[in-house]
Order: sequence, then structure tokens, then C-alpha cells
Amino acid sequence: MKAFYQDFRLGILGGGQLGRMLLQACPNYDVYNVVLDPDADAPCRHLASRFVQGSLTDFDTVYRFGKEVDLLTIEIENVNVAALYQLEREGLTVYPQPRVIDIIQDKRTQKQFYRDHGIPTPDFLLVDGKADIAANLDFLPAFNKLGRGGYDGGGVRRLDTAADLERAFDAPGVLEQLVDFEREISVIAARNAQGEVAVFPAVECVFDPRYNLVDYLLAPSQSTPAVLARAEAIARTVVERLQIVGILAVEMFVTRAGEVLVNEVAPRPHNSGHQTINANYTSQYEQHLRAILDLPLGATALKTPSAMVNVLGAEGHSGLARYEGLDALLAIAGVNLFLYGKKFTRPKRKMGHVTILDTDMERLMQKVEKVKQTIRVVAQ
Amino acid sequence: MKAFYQDFRLGILGGGQLGRMLLQACPNYDVYNVVLDPDADAPCRHLASRFVQGSLTDFDTVYRFGKEVDLLTIEIENVNVAALYQLEREGLTVYPQPRVIDIIQDKRTQKQFYRDHGIPTPDFLLVDGKADIAANLDFLPAFNKLGRGGYDGGGVRRLDTAADLERAFDAPGVLEQLVDFEREISVIAARNAQGEVAVFPAVECVFDPRYNLVDYLLAPSQSTPAVLARAEAIARTVVERLQIVGILAVEMFVTRAGEVLVNEVAPRPHNSGHQTINANYTSQYEQHLRAILDLPLGATALKTPSAMVNVLGAEGHSGLARYEGLDALLAIAGVNLFLYGKKFTRPKRKMGHVTILDTDMERLMQKVEKVKQTIRVVAQ
Repeated sequence: MKAFYQDFRLGILGGGQLGRMLLQACPNYDVYNVVLDPDADAPCRHLASRFVQGSLTDFDTVYRFGKEVDLLTIEIENVNVAALYQLEREGLTVYPQPRVIDIIQDKRTQKQFYRDHGIPTPDFLLVDGKADIAANLDFLPAFNKLGRGGYDGGGVRRLDTAADLERAFDAPGVLEQLVDFEREISVIAARNAQGEVAVFPAVECVFDPRYNLVDYLLAPSQSTPAVLARAEAIARTVVERLQIVGILAVEMFVTRAGEVLVNEVAPRPHNSGHQTINANYTSQYEQHLRAILDLPLGATALKTPSAMVNVLGAEGHSGLARYEGLDALLAIAGVNLFLYGKKFTRPKRKMGHVTILDTDMERLMQKVEKVKQTIRVVAQ
Repeated sequence: MKAFYQDFRLGILGGGQLGRMLLQACPNYDVYNVVLDPDADAPCRHLASRFVQGSLTDFDTVYRFGKEVDLLTIEIENVNVAALYQLEREGLTVYPQPRVIDIIQDKRTQKQFYRDHGIPTPDFLLVDGKADIAANLDFLPAFNKLGRGGYDGGGVRRLDTAADLERAFDAPGVLEQLVDFEREISVIAARNAQGEVAVFPAVECVFDPRYNLVDYLLAPSQSTPAVLARAEAIARTVVERLQIVGILAVEMFVTRAGEVLVNEVAPRPHNSGHQTINANYTSQYEQHLRAILDLPLGATALKTPSAMVNVLGAEGHSGLARYEGLDALLAIAGVNLFLYGKKFTRPKRKMGHVTILDTDMERLMQKVEKVKQTIRVVAQ
């Protein structure tokens, strides 16, 4: 699948901010793109070569969309996989493969995959519903995660004792052991159809406990070289065992004992790879294109240390978005702004992000604090 | 002029490769863009939020186009300036200002501007045509440059003796002294409406004598610190005297005596700034947006040394473009490809470019040679 012929069309399922940055990389490879998204005002709306409004989970919509492209990829994993299997059977190249999306879409098959392949992950039990959990109370405290349908931080509940049973999901899922982790890191790996694998340096996710969302992200991670080597080796193993074509974000816990455990993976560009646009020799978006277009993968090293701060909708504000503090923000040296073009803001909504580069880690951290204090998204 | 309100529209005159890369920067500032270009297959065709096919030199077309946008800019200076003046009179913000484009469009007013403002430039005479040149034979050898209409390397003829008079332009232009230069460098400077100025480090243009086109470009320039300081100071002076809002590429000669002379300027993103996308903290495209949107300018420093190689259509090939050698090219570490999406190739046509990054200058130069030997644009 080499894209460099006239009238080649890349289809992308999903038109959010990840698709938006993927579209920004497409012209460099002369890739005509068609985007499917249910939202008429999706971030990709005005960037796509062609934009199609429609459901990502409806078989017929996804199937028909696939029939008009030469290669199909995703920027969100919550898509109709049955349609992808059907398209693949009819000869369409779908990267990542439907088989891979299928495994990852359901946390049960995803966790089982780690176990089957000796990939370290927090211990877990597969459960069919509340009755199953009630029969395994000795496994608590644990996270109860829905197998399917848990997106954007939903689908996860913490159960400490039998008293929490009423809050458990009465649906197929997993019970996952709590991990006393020291930090969370993410490694993005890529694999092309030739089997070439490239791994980005690990980045460290610092969470804001108020929102349970990434507060900022730091590259390189401040973990020990041994931990980083282990994390990068694990990410390589996961893409090799999955035989995925495309990129895969591997989110991992580093325990206080220095163990590295896979939390979950995403078979697409990922929030934890935003800063690769400015900080690395190849961005995760360009890397994904190289992988799915069957081209050699790009160099992944950092050019400079970097941080990434999410720009979230301010509390108490819902409505047409307005950005405050842009002048102060952009006056900080080494700052690059990425707005997602979302028309409406609401509390905690991801409206954009800021990448911050500095060769000096201390100055970098000072700039992170400054950035967090400047930009604010409010309603008009 | 702050763009961050709903329904803001940026108009861009010209839809070539410079516009294409400017469009790639627009989403980060959430800028809806409308592009005017005479070519239905222009490089911006599938990237623009809205694309309008039409003449850039026709008063009515440019005027009507300007009436549907909130801010107007250019990616080529050969546009109808009378329409821009009219739009400005009617209240539209046009950056760079029509006055600036007007000065630069005509090499006579451009050269006179340098003289009036004490900006060093090769000595010259304004001439009305052949008769004028014949009356000033003691000024030869010299370049005879057309005042208006000389684009893409046209509009320049070298006259050594009276015998060359028949080849002279019989139209208003300049006679410009030959300069025995050691190297050609380019400095891109930006100025916003507040008067803030930022200057990119000088890059060095290495020309291929066969094509009289840039063969490759090197940053940082290998000139002495004193020469670089002078070049950057001159670029700053030019933007300050022009009071331009936007970016300005200042092409300069460095003479064997170490003098720095302004050759010509371009009030828009420039070929010599391509590598800023990957190599500098802020790209020239983002910098242009910051300048015209009246935002603080970005940091201009290099993250790593870089080179830029143009990808030109191969000799003897005209027709639908096909790219050879992409696998070998992309296997070189630190290479980023930019194809311009031009449907048809022809000998020497600029079809794309390659940016090469390396922290080691010697390795960088080896990669430049390798890149030049790999990618080739042929007809299908």
C-alpha cells in the first residue's frame, strides 16, 4: 500500500483533535483525506479534503464510507468493527487492523491479551456482572472496569468493600488490582507492514487530581534509565505481539518497587504524543502516516525537553468559546499553541493544548506553571 | 485585529506551496481561511477551509474576494495592489500593507527605498529602457532587472558590454552593479502591529549553477559572527523602516570583503524559511500568523542545525507526477518530507522539499548529499 499515486484517498474514522493534527501532517505526503464524524462542527470539519457527517458506530455508515477510500484508519477506537472486518474481507486495507481494534475495544480481551503474551499488567479477574463480583470479594479493593463502552474516563469504578457492590457495573468487565504507582508514563510505538518498529522516548503524565485528567506531560520522563529501558522494551513487545500496523500508545504504571505494568493501550495518535510535533524529530502523526502508508519509520528522539499542558474549558462556563490570556501565553518563549477549533466550551472540555520547549528542565517547569496561569477558555 | 472570535475569516491571496504550509499552521490558531488562486489544482486546493478559483491580478476578483474576509494576507506578491488599496480604504486590514507590497513589487521603488533609508545594497541606476541604458554604458557590466513583472528567476539579464544592449529590457527597470559575493544568506524577520520585531537566524543558500535555483539551504549560516550580527541588524532595520506587519524575507549578499548587501526582499513566507517548521522554535508560517493576528512573536532560535533540499521535477519528464526513491529517502534519520501536491511535474518545477536535521554538521552535510541522490520526480 503505497499512497503515492494520483487519486489515492485515505479515510479517517473520527474527526476530533487527534484527527485534526493527523490532517495537518497529510499534505506533506500528498494524501487526500476523507473524514467521517457524527458532529457537523467536528475539529476536522474545515481541514479535511472531504468531510462526511455520520455515525462511527453504525455498520452501514462505516461500511459505505470505507467503500469510497483506498486505505482506512482511525483516530478513535469506538467504531463499528464489524463493518471494518467486512471491508477487510472485501479487500480494503484497514490500519490498524480490525482484529487489533477488536482486542483493544474490550478491556477483557485487552487484559487477556497481556496475560497470554506475558506482558506485565496489574492483576485482574474477568467478571460477567455484579454476581460475579460478589463471588470474588476477596479480590477487593479493585477497579471495576466495563469491558465495552467505557470512554473518556467513564466505565471505571473503584470498589473497596462489599458495601460498594451496589455501585459495581452489572455488565461484563474486569476487576483490576489497585496499583500503588509512583508515576504514570506513556510510550508511543509504531510498526509498519514490513514489521519495522520504532519507539518514542517515554513521557511522564502528571495528573490533576481535581479532574482526573492529564494536568501536564513531561518529556523526557524523570524515571531511571533502567525503568525507561524496560518501558520501551514492553511497548515494543506489545506492538510486535499485536502485529499492529500504525501507532500504539502504551500507558504504563511505574510502581514504587520499579516494576513497569501496562495499564491500557490506544491504537491511534494519543494525547500523550502531542508534544512530538514540536519536540521530536518525527511527530506521532507523521509516524502514523509513515506506518500505514508502508514507509520507513522516522527518527523518534527528542530535539529538546518539552512539556504539554491541556487547555480545558473553565468551570462555570458553557457556551460559545472565547480564549483569555493568549497574549500573555504567547509571550512566553518556546510556547506553541494548538486550539482544536471547538465551537462550544464546557467545564473540563479539552479545547486545545500548549507545547512548551526549553533546553533547561528547571526553566521548563517554571514555564509550565506560567502557562497554566495564563490561558483560560470561557463562554462569550 | 484579534482573530479569536467566532466566524473570523482570513483571506490568503495565492494558493501555492507557501500558502499550503501557512494553511497547515492555521488550525492551531483556530483560523478559518479562504484562499484565492487561478489554478483549480493549486497546492492549497484541498487544504483551505474554502477555496476560490480566480485571478490574483484582476482588480474586481481581488476586490470581491477581499469583501468576504476579515483580514487579508498574501503568499505571493504579484497581486492587484490597487484592489488592496481600495479594500484598505474601505476599512479592511491588509497585512502586509498595500503600501509595502507596492514598494516591493517594483524593483525600482524597492531599490530606491534601500537608498533612501541607508540600507546597504548593490549600487544601481534607475533606467527607463534601452535608450537610458545606452546612455550609461560606463555602468556596465551590470544586471538589468525589470521593474515590474520579473518573477521566478525571469526579468533579469546580465549586460557586460555595449554589444549586449540588444538583450536589454526596453522597459522601466534598474541597472545593478555586479557583486563579487562569497555567499548568499537570507534572514527572515517579522513585525507585528505593536511594532515588536523578531529575527530568525540567518540561513545560507547554496545555489545549483545548472538551474539557478537554491540547491540546498543550511542553518546556521557558516558566516562569521560579525557578518551574521550585521545581517540580522540589517533585516531588523528593513522591517522597521518598512513598518511592515507580517514576515519579510531579506536575501543578502556577503561580499569577499565581509560587506552585507541587501539583494531583494519578499513580504511573505519564503523558500529560505521552510526548515523553520522542523528546526526552529517557531516556524515562519506560525510567525506570520502571529504577526498579522497581532499576537506576540515566537522564539526564533534553532533547535538543531538543519538543511533544506528542494525536490525539483526531473529533466525530460513532463506529466502526472510520480515520486521515486521515497523509501530510501525516508530511511535517512532526521528527514522530513514536504510534497506540494502538484499534479503535474515538469523539468525543474518545485514539487516539494526535504528538511534534514542533525546535531552534527558533518553528518548533516553527508545526509544532504544522500537526500539529493534518492528522491526523484518523474512523469507516470
